[in-house]
Amino acid sequence: MPNVFYSYKVTDKEAFFDVHELHHFKVLRLKIGDEIRFIDGNGSLFKGKIRKILSNMAIASIEESHRRHKEWKDRIILCLASSKWHRERLLIEKAIELGIDEIVEFESQYSVAHIRKFEKIDLLVRNAMKQSMNLFKPKIRLFSDFNDFIDWMRIQNDTKFILLDPNGERINDTMIPKGDLGLIVGPEGGFSKQELEIFNSLNLQRVKLGDRILRFETAALTGVIIFSYLKGRM
Amino acid sequence: MPNVFYSYKVTDKEAFFDVHELHHFKVLRLKIGDEIRFIDGNGSLFKGKIRKILSNMAIASIEESHRRHKEWKDRIILCLASSKWHRERLLIEKAIELGIDEIVEFESQYSVAHIRKFEKIDLLVRNAMKQSMNLFKPKIRLFSDFNDFIDWMRIQNDTKFILLDPNGERINDTMIPKGDLGLIVGPEGGFSKQELEIFNSLNLQRVKLGDRILRFETAALTGVIIFSYLKGRM
Repeated sequence: MPNVFYSYKVTDKEAFFDVHELHHFKVLRLKIGDEIRFIDGNGSLFKGKIRKILSNMAIASIEESHRRHKEWKDRIILCLASSKWHRERLLIEKAIELGIDEIVEFESQYSVAHIRKFEKIDLLVRNAMKQSMNLFKPKIRLFSDFNDFIDWMRIQNDTKFILLDPNGERINDTMIPKGDLGLIVGPEGGFSKQELEIFNSLNLQRVKLGDRILRFETAALTGVIIFSYLKGRM
Repeated sequence: MPNVFYSYKVTDKEAFFDVHELHHFKVLRLKIGDEIRFIDGNGSLFKGKIRKILSNMAIASIEESHRRHKEWKDRIILCLASSKWHRERLLIEKAIELGIDEIVEFESQYSVAHIRKFEKIDLLVRNAMKQSMNLFKPKIRLFSDFNDFIDWMRIQNDTKFILLDPNGERINDTMIPKGDLGLIVGPEGGFSKQELEIFNSLNLQRVKLGDRILRFETAALTGVIIFSYLKGRM
């Protein structure tokens, strides 16, 4: 396990760590003067030394930094219906390991769980980044109202959205857009009739992943992986 | 969750259940006369009634049966190095959901865990089949000696083996064989020099999954999913 920390704010010479990172410092018994590696979520990996440990934050000096560019110009956005936490967590962790660019969560009529608090998802994302050494933090958007999600979709003019749907067409490489791709995954129980009508009115491409019925997180991950492959990421 | 059971032996009129299924009967408070659904791992889904409950097994009558044919002629074989149990378990569960045909586990020099007992893997496979309603039980092969795994590979004349390797080529669809495909996934620490030399002598195709370093189970699942797609399963 690479011990790398997440800094929420980096200046020229210093990096700041919040209470969650501070907790990890303590677990690892780190103290002032110890060398650490950390990321900022914007493509940089730093080396530095712990300078200050306060009750709810810490500060480190920056001794070295390496900046990496994003590997891919086009973005892949995962839009998921809120689901059971263990499924949602696994999906988000793996999607981050695979380099997803944005995570959009919405509450659907048949969602078995409400939208989580932003901080809970944010912390999951940070930890997954640290685990997989992903230097780029995906954007996170949470819509507790399905209609707000639709309104947001309507103004994403540079993104082609694709709906995972057991009644859709088989995936083929002609479906892959040149620009950004948004993959929409409904809850285990599927979308409601009203929701499907809204998607219909948006003229979304509907895609199925074979004839098996896959669980929520398996379907979503399979979609992320196949579209990543078709977008030339693998 | 579909409540479906696994019968280790099915005759014309009766199905037999071992102590693990018996335990599930008890958890669900099933009793003689209750109707159950069960699978035999050979493509059949049955309806029947519990007739006998003994101390270490149970028997049900068969009232209805539906037989399904395998969806795909060519087989996909997952050959994995033994790994940490939570990673191995997740991988096997998802591979079964995706319809893997055979699971081969071998102990590699850098494996952090020994090969599990057959019964442990078998039970995991059965439970994953029941969860995902996979009617076909994959074959399970366990090799505690790496050389035995290689000897087995050498006599699989109808299978093309592909090695996941960060130094391999990018996947492309010309790599996909007409017949059976075996995907080999090493331990988190990679294969040893000696092991790689053995694979070299076998002239295996080496394939990488993008430039990111993926965890054991993520790499393996990504491989299973992309090759399933390229073999026309999705």
